[in-house]
Amino acid sequence: MSSTQRNTAPREILPEPTLRRLPWYLAYVSLLKNRNVEYVSSTAISRELNVDASQIAKDLSYLSIKGKTRIGYEVVRLERELREFLGFKTVHNAIIVGTGSLGAALIADSGLSRYGLNIVAGFDVNPKLVNTTICGIPVYDITDLPRKRRELDAEIAVIAVPVEVAQDIADTCVAAGIKALWNFTPFRIKTAGDIVIQNTSIYSHLAVMYNRLDTKNQGSL
Amino acid sequence: MSSTQRNTAPREILPEPTLRRLPWYLAYVSLLKNRNVEYVSSTAISRELNVDASQIAKDLSYLSIKGKTRIGYEVVRLERELREFLGFKTVHNAIIVGTGSLGAALIADSGLSRYGLNIVAGFDVNPKLVNTTICGIPVYDITDLPRKRRELDAEIAVIAVPVEVAQDIADTCVAAGIKALWNFTPFRIKTAGDIVIQNTSIYSHLAVMYNRLDTKNQGSL
Repeated sequence: MSSTQRNTAPREILPEPTLRRLPWYLAYVSLLKNRNVEYVSSTAISRELNVDASQIAKDLSYLSIKGKTRIGYEVVRLERELREFLGFKTVHNAIIVGTGSLGAALIADSGLSRYGLNIVAGFDVNPKLVNTTICGIPVYDITDLPRKRRELDAEIAVIAVPVEVAQDIADTCVAAGIKALWNFTPFRIKTAGDIVIQNTSIYSHLAVMYNRLDTKNQGSL
Repeated sequence: MSSTQRNTAPREILPEPTLRRLPWYLAYVSLLKNRNVEYVSSTAISRELNVDASQIAKDLSYLSIKGKTRIGYEVVRLERELREFLGFKTVHNAIIVGTGSLGAALIADSGLSRYGLNIVAGFDVNPKLVNTTICGIPVYDITDLPRKRRELDAEIAVIAVPVEVAQDIADTCVAAGIKALWNFTPFRIKTAGDIVIQNTSIYSHLAVMYNRLDTKNQGSL
């Protein structure tokens, strides 16, 4: 990754809630762009997304774009600035460890590359998967991880292994020079030093949904 | 879904942070079960997961299991009770709308069925996808959704469509009798009434990861 690309990246550590809301604004503004809408106010975004207008103005103040009084933000520019600011226009090389059902699914999801995640290789222990390709992405033996990581210049590892080996695999990745772990297992990985860990346990969202659904159904019985 | 299955479901509306932490405990306890560990204390779970021991005890108090003083919880029973309590042992029929890259990936992910989500059909507008199957799951035309939803007795719809049509599709699902929406788009879907909405925007997690990684790299320059 070149230093030029680094320059377009955000320089401040942003609050996580802000970073999670900005993609909502991007999604809505992209929609407006497709509809050829020219300007949008934070009040209009607020109405659509159920986020307080002053919160939206505060979140957007991290970007270099300024809204015009009574007109709002230029849609085309806001869309571009949000996409750049969030790092979605920068190519981030990533490896994926564990190419079973979830790992293979993530490789197959072309959406990730549209958001700047460039999966360059998969790793597994299963001899049936090693030396195959998934959607054109090569799968290597886990023992090749340190060498391949350097060759491919990947800073991000997507962890999609069984929960029992999540910590071991994370340790292997960090020892091989990985700087950020995107952990799809429900295991709470621990690392020494300043490794970035992002936990995305999609199954825990199911627990919330089931509970809400069951209590709702009971209420109507 | 039978009323007997309802009886095993949690009857209280639990706080969302508790519902998100319980699957972490389940993941760790499953690990201990595989290692034939007999008992675990909340202090031991606390050390492993970096969650306060009193918080763990409080979270687990929603279950009917009681820990023994100085010994802790019986691992096999705690694993089973957590899995049941979280609804992972109950079969929840679900349809998936949008069988493009992400939708197809979710169908292919066998992990979902291990956590109680039984995907029974996919829906799409693309004539190339309609009347095909993905991993054995039939894909129907979106216009068949109301009829098929009833036939298949599905209460949950997984929304994996392009962001521009997320709201329209959600409205179609709700009109067809869907009770819960698992929204994978970054669009903030709005519904009337008491429809359960769970948002899982995996791409917004990328934004957080990129920001942390970039600020870290800048710090080390």
